[in-house]
Parts: sequence; structure tokens; C-alpha cells
Amino acid sequence: MKVLVLGGDGYLGWPTALYLSRRGHEVGVVDNFARRQYDFELGAESLVPIASLQERIRVWQAVSGRVITPFIGDLTDAEFVYRVFREFEPEAIVHFGEQRSAPYSMIDRRHAVYTQVNNVVGTLNVLYAMAEINPAVHLVKLGSMGEYGTPNIDIEEGFLEVTHNGRRDVLPYPKQPGSMYHLSKVHDSHNILFACRNWGLRSTDLNQGIVYGQVTEETAQDPRLATRLDYDAVFGTVLNRFIIQAVLGHPLTVYGQGGQTRGMLDIRDTVRCIEIALENPPAPGEYRVFNQFVEEFSVKQLAELVARLWPGGARIDYLPNPRTEADSHYYNARHTKLMDLGLKPHLLSETLIESLFEVVERHKDRVNWEAIRPTVDWRRTHNAVGQVGMPVSRG
Amino acid sequence: MKVLVLGGDGYLGWPTALYLSRRGHEVGVVDNFARRQYDFELGAESLVPIASLQERIRVWQAVSGRVITPFIGDLTDAEFVYRVFREFEPEAIVHFGEQRSAPYSMIDRRHAVYTQVNNVVGTLNVLYAMAEINPAVHLVKLGSMGEYGTPNIDIEEGFLEVTHNGRRDVLPYPKQPGSMYHLSKVHDSHNILFACRNWGLRSTDLNQGIVYGQVTEETAQDPRLATRLDYDAVFGTVLNRFIIQAVLGHPLTVYGQGGQTRGMLDIRDTVRCIEIALENPPAPGEYRVFNQFVEEFSVKQLAELVARLWPGGARIDYLPNPRTEADSHYYNARHTKLMDLGLKPHLLSETLIESLFEVVERHKDRVNWEAIRPTVDWRRTHNAVGQVGMPVSRG
Repeated sequence: MKVLVLGGDGYLGWPTALYLSRRGHEVGVVDNFARRQYDFELGAESLVPIASLQERIRVWQAVSGRVITPFIGDLTDAEFVYRVFREFEPEAIVHFGEQRSAPYSMIDRRHAVYTQVNNVVGTLNVLYAMAEINPAVHLVKLGSMGEYGTPNIDIEEGFLEVTHNGRRDVLPYPKQPGSMYHLSKVHDSHNILFACRNWGLRSTDLNQGIVYGQVTEETAQDPRLATRLDYDAVFGTVLNRFIIQAVLGHPLTVYGQGGQTRGMLDIRDTVRCIEIALENPPAPGEYRVFNQFVEEFSVKQLAELVARLWPGGARIDYLPNPRTEADSHYYNARHTKLMDLGLKPHLLSETLIESLFEVVERHKDRVNWEAIRPTVDWRRTHNAVGQVGMPVSRG
Repeated sequence: MKVLVLGGDGYLGWPTALYLSRRGHEVGVVDNFARRQYDFELGAESLVPIASLQERIRVWQAVSGRVITPFIGDLTDAEFVYRVFREFEPEAIVHFGEQRSAPYSMIDRRHAVYTQVNNVVGTLNVLYAMAEINPAVHLVKLGSMGEYGTPNIDIEEGFLEVTHNGRRDVLPYPKQPGSMYHLSKVHDSHNILFACRNWGLRSTDLNQGIVYGQVTEETAQDPRLATRLDYDAVFGTVLNRFIIQAVLGHPLTVYGQGGQTRGMLDIRDTVRCIEIALENPPAPGEYRVFNQFVEEFSVKQLAELVARLWPGGARIDYLPNPRTEADSHYYNARHTKLMDLGLKPHLLSETLIESLFEVVERHKDRVNWEAIRPTVDWRRTHNAVGQVGMPVSRG
């Protein structure tokens, strides 16, 4: 299958491109390197050194004998998107190509507007390119479990059967996203559902939980194939961040009481879930949602687990929660559709955490300590980010 | 009260500004004249001639002795928005300042992207200006009944009480908007709800039905105070359009079988609903939704009513529906909150329709006949609009 991976230079996009390439698909990668640009802005780069996309692709060809085609450009540039569609002629698209950090979107007005415009317009351009050039293409879109928020009822996979005043319907699941970033994903979901119904497009929206881990079978084959690992408070996700903090001897930074419960998955399950979605496309006109995670943990549970496993232990700091979110709430989210299609999950193991301790240990000298503690407060409309504590604004 | 009317030069914004000014409020009007610009693009101007904003304001001062302050600029320009907030110091904002036509948003990709970016970014800038400058401001935002789509259950006012697997919650009402425009309103609704919860802002979202009529007590005081009346297939709304078609001797253009049922209201109720919302502000942090319409009609009912009332009758043409929408569906939408707060609705009357016949009769020579029949097909991604049938694109 010809698969175009949008955002294929990022934390998950790159391992996905390698995984699909190794399984014999013809893979193209689209990226504008926005994620590498954020590093300059925040003064915090990947803990694990990463090669340029061009070098990654060269090394992969040397290691595997397989070709990955790069397309360098911006999804908000419609002419670029249409050109790539015409040149590569994808049968499926895996769309990681969005600004993906909630704190980044909450830095200030400019970052909020950037996040929503970048994500929504990029996805609109992809939908129009599909409608105009090849409506049969299957769009596998990365959404987020954070779109749902924390309702007091069970979370279903995308849709909810409602009985009301004696009548019944199946409706899009009501969303209560908790950041400008999560809002952008909800906007995308509505736009994609409409495009599927209106033009007969087909899409799988993967509402993904929080991913941990850094190594896949493919990235392990050469250090220059490594994917990024973020430790900073803006892009570092919760379990990865705790592991890095433990190794550094930095207290584990729990926001609030740590009762926030979230669905999580191993990076090796992310790439497999994408493959499962690709292998089982929806019908024309169908918009389908899979909740993509395998276990639920509270933030406090994760911190305690890491603190217990790190030799000598780690201190846990309960910081005032910089986010406006419930830190004690009901949480029970369905996640059976990917299992039903064959996902065999990697459950969180001590071995995985210990192997991450080793990865971090090798690179811990690269850390900018100032980037670890959260500086983006949801209640403020101006937040200071960047390595010397100065506000940095996007033009 | 100091009230800023965003989009105050438009079909409803201008009568609202006059109405509030007459009731003793200090009114500012913000507009970038985008709506007048669309006229050039589409080759179809208001059937009733309209004066410039500056002349309207001069005449209003002469007629009423009251001052309206104009601010000319674009809501997507944050510096402009912040400057207006600091200069005018509004206590309340009435936000009509969005691209408001579903067909316009469905012309092609550029118009879809323009509509979503213009509407979403403009509203984000307003929300940030409120959060940063004065969170006590009450935002009265114009949403649309079209946000809900046509679910098979009763439509509630913004929120739905759901019982699911034995648990209960009140959640945002699930939305199924049917155009890129209606999607932009849904995006706004999610953004505003978040802003209220996150920063303690207060907002009333008025999910308005289809407005008919053209005359209010205030606009009737001088021909130069008239508001616009659109007859074209892109901006003309259904009842107004049928009335104009009848007077012109053009068949009434019903899309599909005309079973589409929609909530409707008189323009004189629009301005009163705004006043009611302003007089009864929500609590800080509260996001409140009122469904703003007073009666439900099917499109076929409206066509038959107009055909019956026009002397000599009118032909009804049932055209292939250019939109992707159900033209036979369940529809029962709650609309009690504004009534409970004191709205005394103008129900649709023969007198009102006959008075509109007269308005149209006076100006019927201004019509561009080519703009009447629908040319925007929801299923196509390129549609021809403009007076000589040529596609016109927005740069």
C-alpha cells in the first residue's frame, strides 16, 4: 500500500513510517519541521539526539534496503498538499501533522491561534485534496482521548447512543476538551465527520491516549534511526517525563493531587494500531473512531511506580496544578475496537521502565534544567517559555 | 450599558445597534465591511439600497440625537481588537462579526478555509481580549440552530442530560452541522465554553434560527437607516428569498422536496432577544445557550404560503437539492429560555409578508437574475459564483 505519513519526522510519525516501510508498504513522509522549530523556541531539545530527516532516510535505506520518500512542506499550504497528492498518489494517509502539545497551545493568544489554524487548516486542505483528487483514500487521523474530557459517564468510541424523551439516536459523543490544542482536535473531528458524510470520504479517527516509550524494533537498528524523547514541561508527556526526572535526580512533578486518570499506551502499540487501522479500512462515507490506548493510570500511580523502581527512590513534588482540570474524577473509557481487530497490547512493565532509565542515563547531560518545571499556567493568558525564562512570541 | 456590536454594519448587526442605541445604551460598532465585499464578488447587492456606515451613523444622530461610535477593522487583527477594547471599554459585546452564509462557505476550499479561519480566529481574539482586559464583559455571541443538524431526538438548548450505563451527566448537546460555515459556529461554541470555564468569562450563545423581515421601528425612521435585504442564492435566506422571487415573477426555488424544517423568527424579535440576553447576564464562568427562534416551518410550507399570498400566485420549482441534508426528518427544538425571560414573539403573519412584498416591489429593478438560482452544490469542491457565471476565487 502507498502510505503518506504526515508529520513523519516527529516522535510517533517517524517510528510509524519505519514500521510501515518494514512491512512492505511504500511510504512517503511529509513534514515542515515545525516540531524541531519549537525546540529552538523552548530551548529544550530531544533528550535523545536525533538525525535529520534526510540522514534518517539514508540510514534506513542502508539498513533495510527500503526507500522512504520525503516531501518537505507545510500542510497549511494547499498547493503543496495537492502537489504531494498528485505526485505520490497515496492510497492511505496517516495524519500526525499537527501541533500536539496542550501547554504549547496555552502559552498565549498567538500560540492558541497558531495551534488552531495550523491544525484545522492543515486537515481541511487534506480533506479537500482527498475529495478532489481521490475520494477513495483512507485517512487515518490522530485524534486525542483528551477530546472527551472527563464526563461523569462512560466514554464510548466516538459515538453515543442516546434515548431522550422516548426517542433514540446515535450521536457524536459530546466533547469537553481542556485546552486550545484539544479544542483543535475536536474541530478536526467535526470537520472530518462532515467531509465523510458530504463527499463520501473514509476516515478512521484514532483518539489516542498518552504514549510512553521511545524504542521500536525499527528505531533500535541504528542510533541514527532514534526518535525524539521530550522531557520538558511543554512537550514531555507524563510517564516519559517522570522517568527522565527520576534519572536526573529531579523531583517528579505531579500537578495537583495527581488523581487525573488517563488512558495510556506503549509506542510499539501506536505503530501497530496504525497498521490495524490501515488493514481494516472503513466503507466509503464512513467516519469511524477508535479509542487508542490499552490501560488507565492516574498520574499519582505513575509517579509512585517510577519512584519505586528508580534505585534509591525519587521524591514526588505535588505542584499547584497549572491546568484547569479535575484532579479527581470518574473515568471509564471503552477501548475494544482495536483489540477486536487484533491488537495484542504491551502492558506497562517494570522492564520497559527500566530500559527507559538506561536510555535516559546515556543522554542526561543534554538536559536544560530550566525547561523541566511547568511555566504554562492555564489561567494566565501570557506565559513565559524559553530557556532563560523569557517570553518568546511567534510572529 | 456600553455595548460593542461586532459586525454592526450587517443585516442584523445594524438594526441591533440602532435598537440598543434607542434604548439608551452607549453603542460602538465594529466592522471590516467584509459583507459588502462579498457583494462585489457575487455580483449581487442588497435589494434595498443601503447607505455607508458613516452616513447611517450621521443620519441616526440627526434622527435620534444619539451617538454611535464606529471602529473600522478586522477581528482577526488582534491588535485592532485589543485597541478597540481599551478605547471603548465595553461592558457587553454582541458578536455578529462572522461570515454567515452556508453556501458561501461551500463554494470551494478557499472559501471554506476563509470562513473557518475568519470566524474562529476573530472569536478567539475577542475571548483573549476579554480574558486579558476585562473578564467581566458579557459576550452575546450569535450561533446557529444549524449547529445541531437534524437529530432524531428533541433538540435542547445547548446541553443534554444523558443517562448512560446507570450514570448521569449534563453534557454539551452533540452537534452535527451541515456546512463548513455551520462547522465554524460549532468550533466557536466549543472555544467559548472552554474560555468561560477556564478564565471565568461569561457568555450567552444565541443559536439563532432563520431570520425574516427587513424593517424595525428604528430602521423605518429614514430610508438611509435601512438594513440590507439579500435575494441571491448565496446570502438570501429562505423566506426573504421566496418573497423576492414571487414579486419578480421568478419561480420559488425549493431545494429537494422542501421537507426541511427550521426554526424561524422575525427581525424585530432578533433585536429584542439580544436585549433580553444583555439584561440578564450569566454568572461569571457561565456559558449559556438560548435557542433563538419562535416558530418552526418546513421550506415547502413557506413556499406555499408565499405563493398563496402573492396576487396571481407563484410557481414553485422543486430543484434537485444542492445541499447534503435530509429533506424529510424529525424536528422538535426547545426554545423556552428567551420566552421565560420575557420575549413576546412576532408570529409570522400575512401582514408581514405583504409589507415585504411592498418593500421588494419598490426595488425590484436592482435584481441580478443570474444570482437567484443556486449554483453552489455541496457535493462539488469547485463552484461557480459571480454575476457572469464565472468562478471567482478569494486570494
